Amino acid sequence: LTSLPAHYVSRFSLPIRVYFQDTDAGGVVFHGTYLSFFERARTEWLRSFGVELNSFVEEEGVLFIVRRMELAYRKPAKLDDRLEVSAELAGLGRAQFTLRQEVMRGDELLVKADVNLACVQSGSLRPVPLPESVRSKLDLVTSPKQESM
Amino acid sequence: LTSLPAHYVSRFSLPIRVYFQDTDAGGVVFHGTYLSFFERARTEWLRSFGVELNSFVEEEGVLFIVRRMELAYRKPAKLDDRLEVSAELAGLGRAQFTLRQEVMRGDELLVKADVNLACVQSGSLRPVPLPESVRSKLDLVTSPKQESM
Amino acid sequence: LTSLPAHYVSRFSLPIRVYFQDTDAGGVVFHGTYLSFFERARTEWLRSFGVELNSFVEEEGVLFIVRRMELAYRKPAKLDDRLEVSAELAGLGRAQFTLRQEVMRGDELLVKADVNLACVQSGSLRPVPLPESVRSKLDLVTSPKQESM
Amino acid sequence: LTSLPAHYVSRFSLPIRVYFQDTDAGGVVFHGTYLSFFERARTEWLRSFGVELNSFVEEEGVLFIVRRMELAYRKPAKLDDRLEVSAELAGLGRAQFTLRQEVMRGDELLVKADVNLACVQSGSLRPVPLPESVRSKLDLVTSPKQESM
Repeated sequence: LTSLPAHYVSRFSLPIRVYFQDTDAGGVVFHGTYLSFFERARTEWLRSFGVELNSFVEEEGVLFIVRRMELAYRKPAKLDDRLEVSAELAGLGRAQFTLRQEVMRGDELLVKADVNLACVQSGSLRPVPLPESVRSKLDLVTSPKQESM
Repeated sequence: LTSLPAHYVSRFSLPIRVYFQDTDAGGVVFHGTYLSFFERARTEWLRSFGVELNSFVEEEGVLFIVRRMELAYRKPAKLDDRLEVSAELAGLGRAQFTLRQEVMRGDELLVKADVNLACVQSGSLRPVPLPESVRSKLDLVTSPKQESM
Repeated sequence: LTSLPAHYVSRFSLPIRVYFQDTDAGGVVFHGTYLSFFERARTEWLRSFGVELNSFVEEEGVLFIVRRMELAYRKPAKLDDRLEVSAELAGLGRAQFTLRQEVMRGDELLVKADVNLACVQSGSLRPVPLPESVRSKLDLVTSPKQESM
Repeated sequence: LTSLPAHYVSRFSLPIRVYFQDTDAGGVVFHGTYLSFFERARTEWLRSFGVELNSFVEEEGVLFIVRRMELAYRKPAKLDDRLEVSAELAGLGRAQFTLRQEVMRGDELLVKADVNLACVQSGSLRPVPLPESVRSKLDLVTSPKQESM
């Protein structure tokens, strides 16, 4: 029985600090800023599989673009807050996949998002199947956790 | 028969030009930038009713915050594109309302969003009913168009 | 005596409205946001000469990049402010030029910047001389205003 | 001979990764984005002295705002780059101080900035002397390094 690397089966999480640049005159984080927080966490989640986006574009000629997004804002984050922003695979197709992402402050859920990403050719932006190098890793993530025996 | 001001019953639209600041290394507008485009159009839509957000906070002590958002990205906008970003009332409750917003490039729909906004007290951010001054104007918008006789 | 087009000899100015997205928790415009305001005004100033940045990259294969910038922040802009952001040619070399830019609120000077831009090859980002199509127009701007006789 | 805490006398540096959100269609980091990178590094530099900006505003009623900035852009940062952004005290007055900040990629200097910050009352934004709690720490930083004997 081959054990899977822990970071493939568990939820990925990135610590993010809130700065003035992230806030607005309402005294809280601007609602659009969370999309930047989510992008940082998704990118690091991919990097944890060995997918570096820049070399990925150059070597595979493909790009991931956001196709749909659903956001629920529960509570606002504030200046100096230390957040945890997560990414977890929630769906996997031939040419697209879906992530569930959350912004947490300690135990409090602040913002939740479902993000659907398509794999496209850089340049034409036409949909293409996920490269095998990525698929094989995402397949591992979606497999049910294997119990130790 | 009282005729309604045209800008209450028709869709509001704001022209927005795409600059380098709005794009990313994928060569197209960054997906998070559209939330800024939508905010600009919503704010001008409110201003067309006489609601200036800054004085609104100071006089009424209330703020509109985004509570939920659903986004569908159809086609990317590019550098130098001249877009039209719209706002149209799609739902109206006691303490919240929903806008349908679209990014158009000529006849092409690029991005579509449903944006649910809550009315909250500035400071506490607790939900409060929409001020009567705003409600009375939004009620007009949601009325069925009156045919001229 | 040939008269010059008015927009070549006079200062260019772009109206810009302040939205929540431009502000921070200090209640005023975030200091980095002014660089976006300046970029919008510079781009429209270039467009007033017939230089569209996107087609410029594609046709001439060159790009303008910021090389140096000096900023003086005098007074803060606030939510809902209606600003005028200017661009005026202050220096012209073989492969670079300098703009004086200002953010005004009515008669008040809020922020002032000297922005030095270099002309570079897209891709390599190596300095190249300004294309003749741009130089001929900037030469007109730097000529002393001709008095009517 | 009292030895000083190492982080007071040495240069402060924050690792920052480049994401799509930081880049523009030129394929490199947008020139305005570096101001956000610098703000993050300055904030963490202050935090290393025990100054948390949010509680600082609430307890002392004062705010640091950027008054002047000089930027030199040497080389562009790119997607996925891992940068080090530094902050070092370069000048200290009664109500203002100046930082030298740099963006490094390995041994390469990419961007350099001198940032002058003023201490102001939150609300009125009038200049006020630096609070004693901050001054006493900045005084330590500006002291000549003490040699071990």
